[in-house]
Amino acid sequence: MTISDPRLFLTSLFNAAVRAADPLNGIRAHLPAKPKGRTVVVGAGKGSAQMAAALESCWDGPLEGVAVTRYGFGAPCERIEIIEAAHPVPDAAGLVASRRLLKLVDGLTDDDLVIALISGGGSALLPSPAGDLSVEDEIAVNKSLLASGAPISAMNTIRKHLSTIKGGRLAAAAYPARVVSLVVSDIPGDDPALVASGPTVPGRGTRSDALDLIRLHRIDLPAAVIAHIEQPQSEAPRPDDPRFARNEVHLIASAGVSLEAAAAVARAAGIEAAILSDAIEGEAREAAHVHAALAREVLFRNRPFAKPVVLLSGGETTVTLRGKGKGGRNSEFLLSLAIDIDGTSGIQAIAADTDGIDGSEDNAGAFADATTASRLRQMGLVPAEMLKNNDAWTAFDAVGDLFVPGPTGTNVNDFRAILIQ
Amino acid sequence: MTISDPRLFLTSLFNAAVRAADPLNGIRAHLPAKPKGRTVVVGAGKGSAQMAAALESCWDGPLEGVAVTRYGFGAPCERIEIIEAAHPVPDAAGLVASRRLLKLVDGLTDDDLVIALISGGGSALLPSPAGDLSVEDEIAVNKSLLASGAPISAMNTIRKHLSTIKGGRLAAAAYPARVVSLVVSDIPGDDPALVASGPTVPGRGTRSDALDLIRLHRIDLPAAVIAHIEQPQSEAPRPDDPRFARNEVHLIASAGVSLEAAAAVARAAGIEAAILSDAIEGEAREAAHVHAALAREVLFRNRPFAKPVVLLSGGETTVTLRGKGKGGRNSEFLLSLAIDIDGTSGIQAIAADTDGIDGSEDNAGAFADATTASRLRQMGLVPAEMLKNNDAWTAFDAVGDLFVPGPTGTNVNDFRAILIQ
Repeated sequence: MTISDPRLFLTSLFNAAVRAADPLNGIRAHLPAKPKGRTVVVGAGKGSAQMAAALESCWDGPLEGVAVTRYGFGAPCERIEIIEAAHPVPDAAGLVASRRLLKLVDGLTDDDLVIALISGGGSALLPSPAGDLSVEDEIAVNKSLLASGAPISAMNTIRKHLSTIKGGRLAAAAYPARVVSLVVSDIPGDDPALVASGPTVPGRGTRSDALDLIRLHRIDLPAAVIAHIEQPQSEAPRPDDPRFARNEVHLIASAGVSLEAAAAVARAAGIEAAILSDAIEGEAREAAHVHAALAREVLFRNRPFAKPVVLLSGGETTVTLRGKGKGGRNSEFLLSLAIDIDGTSGIQAIAADTDGIDGSEDNAGAFADATTASRLRQMGLVPAEMLKNNDAWTAFDAVGDLFVPGPTGTNVNDFRAILIQ
Repeated sequence: MTISDPRLFLTSLFNAAVRAADPLNGIRAHLPAKPKGRTVVVGAGKGSAQMAAALESCWDGPLEGVAVTRYGFGAPCERIEIIEAAHPVPDAAGLVASRRLLKLVDGLTDDDLVIALISGGGSALLPSPAGDLSVEDEIAVNKSLLASGAPISAMNTIRKHLSTIKGGRLAAAAYPARVVSLVVSDIPGDDPALVASGPTVPGRGTRSDALDLIRLHRIDLPAAVIAHIEQPQSEAPRPDDPRFARNEVHLIASAGVSLEAAAAVARAAGIEAAILSDAIEGEAREAAHVHAALAREVLFRNRPFAKPVVLLSGGETTVTLRGKGKGGRNSEFLLSLAIDIDGTSGIQAIAADTDGIDGSEDNAGAFADATTASRLRQMGLVPAEMLKNNDAWTAFDAVGDLFVPGPTGTNVNDFRAILIQ
């Protein structure tokens, strides 16, 4: 089996990944039955407005509610109110949104249904400091958590003990209403309690775990924060709390699910697919070195996977800006890869952001192959210098290899596919 | 199949990799027949003194010659003279060594045998500027080549047209003697013409290719250098030159061969092995992120390889120093990996330099697993801060997980094995 039009093939894999992450498909598949009472929507996260619009389009009955999303991430909704707030550092709009959500679920009965639309970024969008703490305390805590290098499960266990809305507290506030959470995961491993700090999904970590983790990771926190966690009444709800007995949680989209969808399309076309990971992090250009080395091992030695094969990976790489060029993490990944596979025919790659926008321009990503670097040089451009200058967009624009599908309405982070044949 | 003592198992893989790279085994396997005439040894590279000592130990007959190695890389030899010179920036000692080697092979007859012992680093150890060029020109060229990001095959095509010894010229000078080259490769893909710029192994690139490559990669070179390459008499010998008809080239060790040896030992113990690549480059801590993500995918989802499996990789990572700690690229790789797999039982790793010394201390590398980070924290240490400070040696020393086999007498760069079960 040989793929005669690799770009068409790679594009079909990207499309399959995006389709699998379309909130409308996921919401339709897990739509709860209409309740006797009211249906109240609570949403939080970078995808919550898109999810709210999708829910409105397929919900047959009365619907009310509020969803908070990041500035600029709104979507047109008729029945669900969209509030935009600051991310990644919370602002007053997020504080207002948290209060609105808690008020909205207050006083519901067991005939009522709460549909929670949760996606990545919801933690910053829902500041709601407990006790005597302030939003500034929450911001300071978050800064210390990120600086500590602690794993996200540890961060979550600490955060939820400082909030009136996180760690299942929004679901507890909605009791006795039934809460159905529909979750788009941006978290490696897809634990729904970790997405947006789980406002409707309690995690396992306790107050005592939080104090241990603060000591273990030597996380520098304001004294008031420690004092707050030390109070017994700060304990977050437990997953086995009887108030949650009727609740449901559904993962409706994730990087892993999207990679599996892309793999299925590849296999249907007669190409074996190897999913490397849905959670690759680190510098984009450096992740490219390992991907390129692996692709070359396959090409030259037919191992650790037999040709033809497509290597798939997801996650969220980063770009440390050193230059003044234009680009995003996916185009930077590809420019680094293009330099590594310079002249190595038989390798073709796509890397693109599943939300359709990679960085500052209007492309989702780009295509790269053995000829990319030499075509740049023939135009008088120096690939290594462009990479040094974080100018990957300009490079792929110059050779006409940008990938511009437009905004997709969903987001499960990066999508990379490398075809070796 | 479960490995009950993972460290013993991982150590056995490292030992197999080192054993496969032992020059004595490789030299013995490819020892040429004794000639009627003289046997002259020419050696260049960081491993050439070790190779010379190995050859002396198994060569039954008269032997004479010179091998140039890096300062501090000598080995006791009785019949072969060892010259130490500067690497990576050439010095006068290297210039003297090049002249000695060329003189040594001058005037040989077709009854004589030249055994060339070639290993990585030989290019810098053999400065030998052609025509009116100076060592300073060679140094300037090398600096521009490295800055250009051009692939090593391109660098080699340019370098060999500026030298009186590289690109097969030493073999040409030895004609009509027969030349048998024994090569320890440190080059991805193991093309012997690229190791040490192939003094006895002509490559395919021509003078005209060199000029094209200089333009394509926009390599900034002194005018005298360009002028030199433009002269027809600068053309390097071609691989099909009849003077080389009786010559032989044998790859006696390489990262790829060593990884295959380790894989065979793993499979004999009932554990499948996946060789990811023998040529992984880039920042050690970043390469660790991709290795960790892949290991977690295997652990949690049993893909892209079925458990139990050991992931093997080689190459030469780098460490960009930002802090003031102690460590090497293998221990830094492992500390980064340890943070990523914190608490994830079922993953155990070794990373070590096959020469037995990782960086500045006396360890070859270390071991890491799910408990490494928490054991550090229990000692009051902060793994992420130690990584930031390039202090991986101190971290693994603190938890007693350094791997200290001592100098091995060979070098095929990094060896990494990650067991997932």
